[in-house]
Amino acid sequence: MEFDLATGIAVLERTPATLRAMLAGLPAAWIDATEGPGTWSPYDNIGHLIHGERTDWIPRARIILAQGAERRFTPYDRFAQFRESEGKTLGTLLDDLASLRAENLATLKSWKLTGVQLALTGEHPAFGTVTLRQLLATWVAHDLGHIAQVARVMAKQYREAVGPWREYLPVLDR
Amino acid sequence: MEFDLATGIAVLERTPATLRAMLAGLPAAWIDATEGPGTWSPYDNIGHLIHGERTDWIPRARIILAQGAERRFTPYDRFAQFRESEGKTLGTLLDDLASLRAENLATLKSWKLTGVQLALTGEHPAFGTVTLRQLLATWVAHDLGHIAQVARVMAKQYREAVGPWREYLPVLDR
Repeated sequence: MEFDLATGIAVLERTPATLRAMLAGLPAAWIDATEGPGTWSPYDNIGHLIHGERTDWIPRARIILAQGAERRFTPYDRFAQFRESEGKTLGTLLDDLASLRAENLATLKSWKLTGVQLALTGEHPAFGTVTLRQLLATWVAHDLGHIAQVARVMAKQYREAVGPWREYLPVLDR
Repeated sequence: MEFDLATGIAVLERTPATLRAMLAGLPAAWIDATEGPGTWSPYDNIGHLIHGERTDWIPRARIILAQGAERRFTPYDRFAQFRESEGKTLGTLLDDLASLRAENLATLKSWKLTGVQLALTGEHPAFGTVTLRQLLATWVAHDLGHIAQVARVMAKQYREAVGPWREYLPVLDR
């Protein structure tokens, strides 16, 4: 599928409500579950998405749109959520994600981006030249990847409990 | 994690709303997307979950609880949704899933299952003896597996659109 603004935004605007429906009010045993040492819980995933709203997608889009001399993005901090979520409840994080996402989508829509603008480029610290269109498609795919990750992390908690059905549930060994 | 009724039900009761938040009102390009020939779209996944509500989880639990002479389950039809969803909108399927799930959870709760009952067994057509506890844990893990699948199928539609970011998004090649 080609990236298209309206189709991409349709996913981006659903992510906070999807994660809220999935996680709000769940027992801590699900919220804090991980896939083992060094892996992320559902709670950690929400913090990571919040950090992206603050520092990644829209800030990088602004760098591309400005077309200034310095078009190199600040590297993404994949561990920021361990610091930034400290002391916050999951409910607070879900609220923060929803309000930051709403603001960022309002900004994105207000730009009324043209095909020419979507083809403008910035400099990714690892891969070099990337287009605004690729950045926005990545925002969408990144959301979906984390929804899949949250579901997978939770499913794995029952890897043993399902007994012989494990063979029919590839998500438990992914 | 050991299977526990209240903790498992907490996930089961959130699945219809999660899928509704994720999918209701999305453009057909997302709803009908697949991972290639013979694989399932988000729409197909919802039909599959509905079929499970009708024929799998609660009917199999009843077979186990009855402890009759015939404790062998009817094999699950993994293709039923292609017939049963025909002509239905996604909105109708999401409504069907929500109402069937609500009924089934009301039934499950009304049983007030004890540890002794959870240890009762039935006969799976492929793996032989399974416990009610394993069946119920599988219901939960199966939901989460399909939520992960829906998110993954959608993410993959942007496999090319993300350009070099593909390397950072393992969900695109899973």
